Order: sequence, then structure tokens, then C-alpha cells
Amino acid sequence: MNALVYHGPGQKAWETVPDPTILEPTDAIVKIDTSTICGSDLHILKGDVPETKPGTILGHEAVGTVVKIGKAVTTIAVGDRVLISCITSCGRCRFCKEAKYGLCSGGGGWIFGHTIDGLQAELARVPFADTSVYPVPDGLTDEQVLFVSDILPTAYEVGVLNGGVEPGDTVAVVGAGPIGLAAIMTAQLHTPGQIIAIDLADARLEKAREFGADVTINNGREDAIAIVMGLTGGLGADVAIEAVGVPDTFELCTALIRPGGRVANVGVHGKCATLHLETLWTRDVTITTGLVDTNTTPKLLKLIESGRLDPSPFATHHFALADTVEAYDVFGAAAETGALKVVLEAHPVGHDDRGATVAPTYAPELVGSR
Amino acid sequence: MNALVYHGPGQKAWETVPDPTILEPTDAIVKIDTSTICGSDLHILKGDVPETKPGTILGHEAVGTVVKIGKAVTTIAVGDRVLISCITSCGRCRFCKEAKYGLCSGGGGWIFGHTIDGLQAELARVPFADTSVYPVPDGLTDEQVLFVSDILPTAYEVGVLNGGVEPGDTVAVVGAGPIGLAAIMTAQLHTPGQIIAIDLADARLEKAREFGADVTINNGREDAIAIVMGLTGGLGADVAIEAVGVPDTFELCTALIRPGGRVANVGVHGKCATLHLETLWTRDVTITTGLVDTNTTPKLLKLIESGRLDPSPFATHHFALADTVEAYDVFGAAAETGALKVVLEAHPVGHDDRGATVAPTYAPELVGSR
Amino acid sequence: MNALVYHGPGQKAWETVPDPTILEPTDAIVKIDTSTICGSDLHILKGDVPETKPGTILGHEAVGTVVKIGKAVTTIAVGDRVLISCITSCGRCRFCKEAKYGLCSGGGGWIFGHTIDGLQAELARVPFADTSVYPVPDGLTDEQVLFVSDILPTAYEVGVLNGGVEPGDTVAVVGAGPIGLAAIMTAQLHTPGQIIAIDLADARLEKAREFGADVTINNGREDAIAIVMGLTGGLGADVAIEAVGVPDTFELCTALIRPGGRVANVGVHGKCATLHLETLWTRDVTITTGLVDTNTTPKLLKLIESGRLDPSPFATHHFALADTVEAYDVFGAAAETGALKVVLEAHPVGHDDRGATVAPTYAPELVGSR
Amino acid sequence: MNALVYHGPGQKAWETVPDPTILEPTDAIVKIDTSTICGSDLHILKGDVPETKPGTILGHEAVGTVVKIGKAVTTIAVGDRVLISCITSCGRCRFCKEAKYGLCSGGGGWIFGHTIDGLQAELARVPFADTSVYPVPDGLTDEQVLFVSDILPTAYEVGVLNGGVEPGDTVAVVGAGPIGLAAIMTAQLHTPGQIIAIDLADARLEKAREFGADVTINNGREDAIAIVMGLTGGLGADVAIEAVGVPDTFELCTALIRPGGRVANVGVHGKCATLHLETLWTRDVTITTGLVDTNTTPKLLKLIESGRLDPSPFATHHFALADTVEAYDVFGAAAETGALKVVLEAHPVGHDDRGATVAPTYAPELVGSR
Repeated sequence: MNALVYHGPGQKAWETVPDPTILEPTDAIVKIDTSTICGSDLHILKGDVPETKPGTILGHEAVGTVVKIGKAVTTIAVGDRVLISCITSCGRCRFCKEAKYGLCSGGGGWIFGHTIDGLQAELARVPFADTSVYPVPDGLTDEQVLFVSDILPTAYEVGVLNGGVEPGDTVAVVGAGPIGLAAIMTAQLHTPGQIIAIDLADARLEKAREFGADVTINNGREDAIAIVMGLTGGLGADVAIEAVGVPDTFELCTALIRPGGRVANVGVHGKCATLHLETLWTRDVTITTGLVDTNTTPKLLKLIESGRLDPSPFATHHFALADTVEAYDVFGAAAETGALKVVLEAHPVGHDDRGATVAPTYAPELVGSR
Repeated sequence: MNALVYHGPGQKAWETVPDPTILEPTDAIVKIDTSTICGSDLHILKGDVPETKPGTILGHEAVGTVVKIGKAVTTIAVGDRVLISCITSCGRCRFCKEAKYGLCSGGGGWIFGHTIDGLQAELARVPFADTSVYPVPDGLTDEQVLFVSDILPTAYEVGVLNGGVEPGDTVAVVGAGPIGLAAIMTAQLHTPGQIIAIDLADARLEKAREFGADVTINNGREDAIAIVMGLTGGLGADVAIEAVGVPDTFELCTALIRPGGRVANVGVHGKCATLHLETLWTRDVTITTGLVDTNTTPKLLKLIESGRLDPSPFATHHFALADTVEAYDVFGAAAETGALKVVLEAHPVGHDDRGATVAPTYAPELVGSR
Repeated sequence: MNALVYHGPGQKAWETVPDPTILEPTDAIVKIDTSTICGSDLHILKGDVPETKPGTILGHEAVGTVVKIGKAVTTIAVGDRVLISCITSCGRCRFCKEAKYGLCSGGGGWIFGHTIDGLQAELARVPFADTSVYPVPDGLTDEQVLFVSDILPTAYEVGVLNGGVEPGDTVAVVGAGPIGLAAIMTAQLHTPGQIIAIDLADARLEKAREFGADVTINNGREDAIAIVMGLTGGLGADVAIEAVGVPDTFELCTALIRPGGRVANVGVHGKCATLHLETLWTRDVTITTGLVDTNTTPKLLKLIESGRLDPSPFATHHFALADTVEAYDVFGAAAETGALKVVLEAHPVGHDDRGATVAPTYAPELVGSR
Repeated sequence: MNALVYHGPGQKAWETVPDPTILEPTDAIVKIDTSTICGSDLHILKGDVPETKPGTILGHEAVGTVVKIGKAVTTIAVGDRVLISCITSCGRCRFCKEAKYGLCSGGGGWIFGHTIDGLQAELARVPFADTSVYPVPDGLTDEQVLFVSDILPTAYEVGVLNGGVEPGDTVAVVGAGPIGLAAIMTAQLHTPGQIIAIDLADARLEKAREFGADVTINNGREDAIAIVMGLTGGLGADVAIEAVGVPDTFELCTALIRPGGRVANVGVHGKCATLHLETLWTRDVTITTGLVDTNTTPKLLKLIESGRLDPSPFATHHFALADTVEAYDVFGAAAETGALKVVLEAHPVGHDDRGATVAPTYAPELVGSR
């Protein structure tokens, strides 16, 4: 098969590699129909993630079709269309039993395109398949569910649920990139009173308004704290969601939060931040961190199925899976291209932003069974 | 009457001042029977609390007898023995309605001995009496309930409840001064599996064992993180309670916590701390801060009444109220005197640690009514 | 002033009565601008509520203007526009401190038009005013907030919140009268996956669809249990809200609930029901009952202010306050008139469903102050 | 091997049957070291449980040693001492993912000695072994952990946790048989203010006091409601735990509960009960039912290991496993024998209540591996 292989910092290629095989009785082999690229793929390519070794296939988000299952797999069958979660769950360890799959200590967690081969490929081996993939509800397209692999549950669980968003709340989302937009989108499931998006780029703030922000603040030229205080009777936001990953934005969150409020960190941080305990100690503030568990995946799928949630606006660009290298270029230059998420299709059917219809590059026959 | 009056940094005196009077229909006047001294009284005396003006009577913990009530007071009557909470609740503002009395925006919060005259006095005016004092259950002595004014609910609410202590948990309490000991005592209401006390002083760790710690670590000479990891299968503590108030101890808490655990800050901080988001961002950690609300006061009183909780071991020294200055000396030199809490008695009856029986210095007739 | 006075079963009159006066320092006198009628007013008129004595002014829902306050009232001032809650909170008893105002044991609870004079009047005495009225947000009309007196918080707290509605849930609302419709409306704050309304009357089911039900079942001619099971993969509803108040509908709720689901009773019951523990004991079902506490009033007002919630569709008919008797006729014959809630206006300005503009019948000068 | 086989109502025998074998890759074979008898075994023998077919080996509680594992089993190894839970969890279905193992829809739930062969046997096949057994902590005897198979988590989860017992609460436990006693024992993990045991038999109430009840009421000759009201200032119990399973005791629970309280049903019911909604509808009462999930098993084991919980007082009688029939006689006549739980030992070592030391009847060599 063909796949996008990491060859060390700055180096990647779409190339031919051996087909994956069943290694454990709990494995499944899934033909990838649709995949996408995540900001953490770019981190790996920069060399920031040393545990990812050269030779690893990248990618941890996909929708596909089961082509083979191990002897212990009972809940999915060959031919099933499944969403592959970015988080693998062994289903057996203490953390998986608490539905904290992101902390899986039994061989799961974030492993795809990280410590094992990933999903920007024509085929993938999916460990612990029974507890790590989800049937795609009938009638939904790949694109409608693809972003439930990672970005939606990440924003929803680590941002909205950790932040405890309740009806009527003022929610400040700091950072209006894809993950901040997903927080804005999923916060609306809990009907906050107002959503305030804060970012340095007007283009991202414009997107934030499209995704449901009521107020936007460009904190490059506006005083975010003063504006938030003005919008909240001087109290501060009920919930602040950090969706950037640098010390300044985290500290902004702890400055604009009201007494008794909650700061939910979603951003990926490379440096420590300053925590102003000299003022925060009396303010009844709760701060949370977390990796996504994807335990809300069934709920998010149900909401999409019922028409309550529509992640499709994230799909700004479409590529054939074989053109993944080109897709990386577009996604990596998001500031210029306006890319939120790219869609990589094994069987592309043509889209207005690319025009061309590309023939599928690989169509494995459906083989194997228990 | 006589009272302990603050006269600016380093200066205080037990002196005669005018009797307090009813200023608002929701006020009560309470004759103080028993009071005590808190670490924050020492902070004020050092000059660290600029909003406390010279001329203010200190103290925010007491048991007394109601001698007069305003016309709007309905739930307490003249002659009632009451516990006065360190936190005053207006009962009307948004925060009081959420039982977050420590954040009261209607004139309450921590005001006694801070922004209004306090309780180290023979008489005190108690604002919002209906919502700020608690009847002392029949049969309980002043000393049994006195520490429910502040130290017990502070440790219980801000440490144990914010920390979410559950049966079987490993709870690390960093700091074994009075507030840390109160956390150790009240954590046992939720039956943790093990309580680990961490401090630099062996004498305090010895006390920690007396109060219920299962394991003690002197982190001046022992590696606290390594020991906690060893006791928890390498995971870390389920709950860490910071009971010191300096950056190092806070950072220790965030280092010894397990993935998915909770750090509850109780310490009073004067400086910022470093938050290692570069490691914590993936670890599903919850960090809380808070001022006590004293909304658990009725529960704590009930537990004392039923014999499930006994705060009397905190009472290490007893003084006549008139000897409050001397009591400050003993309490302020806790490292030498071993004082945890001193008991200031308007009607001392003699105790083995002081010997003398002192006549009450003031006994106001019970006068006034609605 | 004039008011609607109850004179025993079946008897009521709009008549002149003495103006109310301040009796306690915590009282306020409020000029009623807008009021409405509740199903429980009809119960009283039927003689079903013996504790309501002849001579009592009826009504427990109103928006008005403060004209006088007692000496202990601090949070509202003469001239303020306020929403009067159907539940009075003393703010001091154990239950009020837990925000369970409906259980107030300090003289509050449901008292208006029940055990004291009510709000279908030109003026009303409001006890415990600080904790029992809410300022109307600027820019909102009386009609926009009027139904937050009772029907909205009742449906939201006792139905939706007790029922624990979560995003994606299947919510079955049994009974599509005003309270069931309010449950359908407020359930949407939590974005359920589907709302199923069940009733015997097609006209009410049509209303249910207008208010947001996704599916309607006429259980006079359809098999509600079978349909619900069909819509939920054979499991049953996640949440069932009983909004009728008879044994059959309650038992239907316990029959169509899924294992692990929640049945929230909102209906006013006059008879016992059968609880099928022989099947329910293994099914992890939670059943709740409750009187409204109105502790969500500030949240609901905020949601209306932010445009997230619009109760105005409940206002089907408008009357001058002086025409309250006529309004009772229309409201009491809801099956024929289609009345959901009637609006009683002290200063009616004319509405298309009644046509006439009636001059205000009473306009007290704004007098009195602390 | 030998096992206790059900042969239809009233008929059972300890007899030789074929050894169990691995049927699925997730199975394990466990040599039973210690087992016990449950009240539901008696129900089956009475013929009350039609889904249990003649020929089934009874029993669902045991401690044993793993002798063989299927190819997909990863977390336990041959030779491990394990506690077998009464509830089997597939680990894959929606309910198992929510830790509601009692509702498992993937082939688990209560199956041992019910729909598949059980644990009163020398060997047992354990399906879904990774998610259905728990390693016995080092240093604990079989008898210390045996009752964590069923009775302890049942009382703790379905009674204490569903009942929401909090420090200081008044907890009424109706029924002082083994399950009621287990509720009394485990309620203490949350430090209630008082535990009131209610039963018709003085002998059971005497046991209740030994297990930690503060007050006992014989409701055959005492007025339970009046006494509970007297002990709670007229309010009623905060939590009522039904541990009998007949309509009268359930209805007693709903009568003695305070407004805002919780009734947790643990009893196994064969008939419907009357729910007095005509009084309960205003009382903010929560009623729960449930089958045990055993999701607290790790917590309970940790508490036993740390010495906080000691279930050994339940072990009133000891038998050799080969004498299981005799043990049934003693357990079935609990009113006369005073039996709480009997201990069935494959390798009995002699106990003062039986005297004799019996040689093990079966000692399979430890064979097999992945």
C-alpha cells in the first residue's frame, strides 16, 4: 500500500510500504477512506516529538472500512464503516475503566502516527479495535464525522466539559484556530449566554463569528481584560478556554476569569507559565488540563446524526489521499490559505475548491473475517 | 468594653474601647465567651494587610452569647449561644445565593478583624447575623466548636472538598501546620486509603501522625516525590493539598500528583508560582484555589455533636481573654511553644497548661430584644 | 386598591380591598404591572387547596415596580422593575441556604395567593423582598420575563435539570400542556438529540412541535412505548418528564425509560401511583419529584436577555388587569380557547388578539424609601 | 471436577461434571479456592428464576487461582490469585464503557450461576476475564476479599453511593440482613452522623449495632417513622436504604425520608409497591434502583488493603467446598443458625466453628498459558 511516512525532522514522503497485518487478536485492519491532518502532525515534522521515530506513518484521524478483524474482535465486522478515534483504548486498564482513555496505561492512548503507524495511509492496523473505533451512523458522510476523530472531542471534553460550560455562561475562548473554533462550536451545545473569541488575527476572528462567537476581541490592539470585564459587570468570564498553548494566553485566561470561574487549558504547551497565586488564591478558581479521552464520541456522533451539530464547515480543502504531501503544504500555510482542516479522500469525487476528480488510488477487496 | 486593638505594624494593645451598637436591623451584638488567634492576625500585625486600618479590633473566630438583635433578625434570640463564622454572609448577593459566602459581594466575606472590628473583644457587632452565626448544639463546649469558625471549614472546604477526596484515595498534605493538620483531620471524614504528610519540621510531622497521617515525609532530607511515587505504584497521589503558601510547596504538589488527580491550594500566597504546563497539559490535572465559604459549618457542627469529629486537640494553650497579648506571644512563637491554637476565654475555669483560674473580666447583663 | 379575591370554592371577584402595607422590615410593596394565571389558581378555585382561606387574593406570578421597601431591604430600591418569584425565600433557613427555596422553612416557599395575599392585584406586599424578587434586565418587556415567575423554572428545574438532560439525549415529555411545553422549550438549552412529546390531544401535540418537539405521539391512538423503543434502538428514553399529574402518565414514564435513565416528575398529583419495582429494581432508574426552587431565575433571565430563550410564545391572550375574571374564563377553558398563558396588564396597550386599548386602572405614585 | 449443580426447583447436588474449557480468546479458567452462597442462590433453588436452567452450576462469588487463559487475555497470568466479580463485563458495550457493568449488553452482567455455569465448583470458566476479575492484593486472605464479589459493592454502590451518603447525614437502613449490614458497614466510609437500623428481628438489630448502627428500631413493636422524626428534628432521614425487597419496607423508606432526601432501593422485589406521589410530589425526593455494577471493586480492595474496611465479620460459618450442600442448609436457615455468609474452602484449614480440618478435594496443577 501507500502511506505518508515520516523520515525525520522536515522530511516526509508518500511512498509504498508493506500492508499492515493482524498482530493481536484484538486488532482490526481498516481501509482508510478519508483522513485529515492535525497540528500535531506538523509538530512531529518539526522534530518536536522525539518519541516518533523515522519510518512511522503519520496521521491519527480517519474514517474507513473494516477489511479484517482479529479473533477476539466481536463488535465490528468486515465491511463496517468506522470512525477511528485518535485515542486508542485498551478497555482494561484502570484509566480506560474510568473512561479516561487518553491516559490508557494498557498500550493505548495517543499512539497512531506517534508511537505506531498512523492513518494517512491506504490501510491501517487498529489495535484494540472493539474499544477504539465507532460505527458511522447510517446516512452520514465521511466528512460529517471525520472531525470527531480528534478536534471535536478535544475541544468539547478538554475545553467545554472541563470548563463546565452551563446555560447562560460567559465563555471566553482564547485562540481562534481550528481547536478554538471547535470549542466555540461545541460550547453552543450548552447554550452559553455569550461566547467571546480572543485572537491576534482578524481573519481568525471573522471565522470565530461564523462559528458562533457573539463578541470578538483582537488582543493585539484591544484590551481583552477590560472588554471582558465590561461585558460581565466587572466580574470576568465564567469559563475561559485556552486554545493556543503559550504562556501569555494561559495567563490571560487566569486574568479574565471571574471569582469562582474555571480555566480549561486545551493548548499544547512547550513552556511553563506563571500562575499568579498571590491574587488567585482567594478567587475560587479551578484550572484544568487534559488530553482528550474521546469518551464523548458516541454522543457527538448522535448529535451529528440528529442534525444538532455540523462539523462540515471545518472542511476547507479537499485532496486525494495520494496528494497528502500537497495537502500538508496547504494545511501548514494556514495563515495564507485559510485552511482549517483538509480532507484526504481515498475515493475523491471532486470539490469546488479543487475542481479535479481523481480516481481512487487503492481499493482493497474486502477480505478476511473472524 | 476591652478589646485587642491593632495600632499599625507591630503594634497592638488590650484596651478599653466603646461598646459596639446595633447599626443595621440585621445586626446582632454578641458577648464573646471564647475566641482564638489565627495566622492571618499575625499577617495583619506584620503590616501585610494594608486594608486593615489602625484602630481595628482584631480576630475573626469566636463563640459567644447574643445580647442584642436588630429588628430584622429572626433566627437567633437574645441569650442564644452562637458560633460566629469567620465569614460573614449578606445572604442576598449572587455569591451568597450560591453558598459561596467567601466571595460575598453584599458587604460580607472576611470582614471581622479585617475591614470592621473583630472578635478578640468582650463584645462584638455581628452584621447579617441571621446568615453569619450558628447556634451551638446543646451539650457542646465552646472549645469543641470554636475551631469551626475558621480552621476546620477552611481545611475541609478548600482542601478536602475542593480536592475531591474519596474513599481509598492517597492524599498528600504538604505542610503540617494547623491548617494542614485540619486537612488531615477532616480528610478522614471521606476515608482515604492513606494520608501522607510532608513538612520540613519533624515536630510538625509528629503532630501529623497524631492527627491521622499514615506516612510522614521530611522533605528537607527525604525525596518526597520518590516516596510518594513508591507508595502509589509510580502514579502519584490522587489528591494533593497545599497548606503552606509558598511557590516551592505548590510546585511540589503539581509534581507528585497522579494523572487525573487534583491539587487543592489552601495556602495563603504572597508570590506567583511556576506552573509546568509543558508537562501538565496532558495529565488531566485539576488545580483549585479558594477562600473558605463556611457553608459546611452546619455539617461540621453535626459531626462534632455526633462524636464523629473532635477538634479539641487543636487547643494547646488557654488564656483569659484579658491576656490576649500574652497569647499572641505564645501563638506567634509556635515553633518554640508548639502552639496549634490558643483558646481565649472570657470566663476561664483553669486548665492544666496554665494552672490559674481567672475571674471573668466582663459579664454584660443580657439585655435588648427585637 | 383592586384585586382578585377568592371567596371559597367556585367563587371569586375583582373587588376593592385595602392597600397592603409593610409589616416586616424585609417587606417591599410592589405595584403590579403585569400578572398571569396558573393552573394551581384553578385548583384553589375548585376547592382542592384547603389551606387557602376565603378572602385571599390569588396569583403568584407578576412583574411590577417597587413602591416602598422596609428598613432591612438593601438590594432593591423604590422605582425598580422587578420580577416577583412564585417562591418566596427567607434566605436564612437551612433549605434556603442550600438554594432549595421551595422547601423554605422560614416563612417562605409557595405562599403568594396560597397562604398570604397574592399578585393578581394592583399592589402586593412581598415578604423577604431581597431574596424573592429579581431586577428585570434593561430592555426586556414584562411579557418577556413574566413566565420566569413560575412555569419556566418549574419545567426547567423539576423537569430538565432533575432529569439530567444532556446533549444527545432522547427526552420524552409526557403531557404537552403549558408545563410540558416549557419543559420542551428549556430542554433545548441542553441540546438533546430528540424530544418526543406524548399527549392525548392533537392540538397540544401541534403546539409541542412548534415549541421544539421532534416527534409527537398521540397515546390515545398510538402505542407510545413501542414508538419510543423504536426510536431508541429498543432501549427506551434517556429522560422522561412527567407533566400531567395522574398515575397513568407517571407509570408510562417508568415504562418507557431506558436502563440507567431518569424519570422527573413535574405533575401535581392527587393520587398515588403504582411503582413496578418487580421490574425496575434491576434497571438503575432514578425517579425525582420536586417543587420549583426558582434558583435558576437569574440564569433564565440572562438567557432571555442574550436572546437564547424566548418565552413570549406562551402569551396567547392579553387582558387588562381589571378584566382578570374574564381572563380566568378564557384560561380555564384552554381546550376550547387554546390559551397557554394569559397576560394581565395594569397598563394594557392593545394587542391584536383583543384589539382594545384600556387605560391603566391604577397608577400609584412612587412613594416611600428606606 | 466437582460442582454444585442445580437440578430444578428444590433440587441440587454436589457432583462430578466435566472440567470447563476455554471457549473464547477472552476466557480464563480459574481454580476456585474459596466461594460462598448468596440469597439469590436460594431464590434460584426455589424456582423463582426461570432463566436458570437445570444443569447449571450455581454460585457467583469466589476467589481463585488462574490456571489457563485465552489468547486475548493480557492483564492476568496463570498463577495469579484473583477475585471473581459477580458481574461480568464485556468491556465493549455502551454500558460497560459507562462503568455500568450490571447493565452489560455484550454478554456480561450477572451470568455466573444464572445463565452460565457458576463458581460453587472446583474450576470455573470466566468470560471476559480481563474486565471481570481483580488481582487479590498481596497479603490479603481469601476471606478478607471474598465478599467484595457481591455483597459489599452491592450495598455500597446501590445503597450508599446511590443514596448519596455524606458526612453528617442521618442514614436509615431498613432491613438488617447481610445486605443491610453491608450497607451499614460501607456507609461509614462517608462518616454519616447517625445510622439507624430498622428490622423486625431483635437478633438482626443486635448484629446491626455490632456492624455500626447507632440506633436500632424494631418496627414490629416500635413506630419507626415517629422515632426517625424524633431523631431528626421532625425532618426525616437524609438517606433511606431499602434492603429487604417487599412493598412495606419500600413504602416505609418513602415515609421516613426528609424533603430533599434520597431513597436507595437495594432489595430484590417480586411485587409492585405504592408510590405516594400525592404527598411526595412536592418533597424533592430522589428514588433510585439498581443492580450492582462492581465498578467500586478496586476501591473496596484498596480500603481493605489499607485496613480501613474489614468484611471478615460476615464470615460466620466455614465449610469445605465439598460440603457445599451442608453449607446451603446452614445458610438457608439463617434465622436459626445466625449465618450471615458461609465460607466454602477448597483447602480448608480448620475453624473454631467447625473444628475439623478437611483435606483439599481437588488441586489442579497449574497448566496452560497464552
